Amino acid sequence: MKIIDGKQTAAQIKAEIAEEVSRMVADGQRPPHLVAILVGHDGGSESYVANKVKACEVCGFRSSLLRYDDTITEEELLSEIDRLNRDPEVDGFIVQLPLPKHIDEQKVTEAIDFRKDVDGFHPINVGRLSIGLPGFRSATPAGIIELLDRYGIETKGKHAVVLGRSNIVGKPIASLLMQKAQPGDCTVTVCHSSTRNIKEICREADIIVAALGRPGFVTADMVKPGATVIDVGTTRVPDASRKSGFRLCGDVDFDNVAPLCEWITPVPGGVGPMTICSLMKNTLLARKGIF
Amino acid sequence: MKIIDGKQTAAQIKAEIAEEVSRMVADGQRPPHLVAILVGHDGGSESYVANKVKACEVCGFRSSLLRYDDTITEEELLSEIDRLNRDPEVDGFIVQLPLPKHIDEQKVTEAIDFRKDVDGFHPINVGRLSIGLPGFRSATPAGIIELLDRYGIETKGKHAVVLGRSNIVGKPIASLLMQKAQPGDCTVTVCHSSTRNIKEICREADIIVAALGRPGFVTADMVKPGATVIDVGTTRVPDASRKSGFRLCGDVDFDNVAPLCEWITPVPGGVGPMTICSLMKNTLLARKGIF
Repeated sequence: MKIIDGKQTAAQIKAEIAEEVSRMVADGQRPPHLVAILVGHDGGSESYVANKVKACEVCGFRSSLLRYDDTITEEELLSEIDRLNRDPEVDGFIVQLPLPKHIDEQKVTEAIDFRKDVDGFHPINVGRLSIGLPGFRSATPAGIIELLDRYGIETKGKHAVVLGRSNIVGKPIASLLMQKAQPGDCTVTVCHSSTRNIKEICREADIIVAALGRPGFVTADMVKPGATVIDVGTTRVPDASRKSGFRLCGDVDFDNVAPLCEWITPVPGGVGPMTICSLMKNTLLARKGIF
Repeated sequence: MKIIDGKQTAAQIKAEIAEEVSRMVADGQRPPHLVAILVGHDGGSESYVANKVKACEVCGFRSSLLRYDDTITEEELLSEIDRLNRDPEVDGFIVQLPLPKHIDEQKVTEAIDFRKDVDGFHPINVGRLSIGLPGFRSATPAGIIELLDRYGIETKGKHAVVLGRSNIVGKPIASLLMQKAQPGDCTVTVCHSSTRNIKEICREADIIVAALGRPGFVTADMVKPGATVIDVGTTRVPDASRKSGFRLCGDVDFDNVAPLCEWITPVPGGVGPMTICSLMKNTLLARKGIF
């Protein structure tokens, strides 16, 4: 059993990005600039955005955090987005989700110019990913592909089973894994809440991507010996022994599953750190221009 | 074994559309207007376009066929597309593929205003389909969903195996079948040329969608008794006994597979007629406005 170390890989990638950015700056060019919009004071959102800002510093990016009270109207938010769309000094920006209930998240997502949509949530980027065209790829799936690539994990002809059909993880990772590419070229099965024989299907998998958000869902009896298991789960479970009051729990029963695997990602320290890393890569791409 | 009669269903849908259009016209409204661009003189393309024009007549649509010699430059074609994008009397238009080699098909596809992209090939419509938002759905997958719906075929929790990962059939039908919808809510497996144990995977399927373009690929030993088989194959096989000199061959060995199935689509007369029907539905939607 070998651990896929997302934390170390992410640090490596950020160092590579920082090196490229320092060359850009030495050449007299402006560094990439990422703007994050944060509405309200959700604890999770606060810490996600703080981590993104921190990653920008490590990469040598300029970052701006725009905070709005949760009383901001949809119209006001859309007008801010319009301003960022037109600002030539902003390469990419993200609107941290979730948004307050009176704001239509889909409308906001689609208001972002797809050329600055570094989260990869705009339908045009979702479509480009599915077709196999260059574009901003949703951060978590892109991070998983990067891990498979950097660890040289053979995927061609393998059977990948994706647990979960969310728009930001399950569907796009399924798309990427079925593309004729390396990593990719897998037979892909997508399972979800309506799947009947999920245990039997998982047992057939050479690669499992667990993205259900159900702590410990993947148990040892569901994993074929020698499989690669990618755990996307990051459920916050209350834990009085931690300073934060919680710990992150993956979708995989790591202690019992890990011994069976050829490769496995831990939680924390697996896919999580790669997600922010993909956002940094997208921002660098936005600065360089990909469309 | 019961036959899914695409020809009869398509006729029924076109009659429904014609009725709606005649009400529109009686109310003093302009009927839907579909424009087809045909470049060159490919035999297949000629007949596909002729069928689309004919379907427009049946539905009471206005149709225009714009023919260009295969010497047209990419720039000229793009300028024609721009003109159609801006013409308020054109609700939807299609550029019949394939195009001559000196023209970039992807560039042409993306030049079409997504609000007039009734083929559903623009990345923004591909993305909207994947996310589950309203938009123009690629015609063949939309036709398959319509057949499953009209025949009341239960899909929730069923295991659907899609053979083929093309951008216009395999990937979008996989997306539609996995959505939380009826028809939909299937566990979905996508197989393709790199899949290793395709026979074993097919044998697990409750629903098989065969879209490989390999005549007779799906044989009786690959089908579980009671399965539903949707045959998207339409390969032209030379046949001297036919006036046209060819016959259409599906991906399924119909004679031997049909007796095992609960439901099966024939070729011709199954999915084929539904594809044009979906184009008509998209054009009607374009006229009424869906964005």
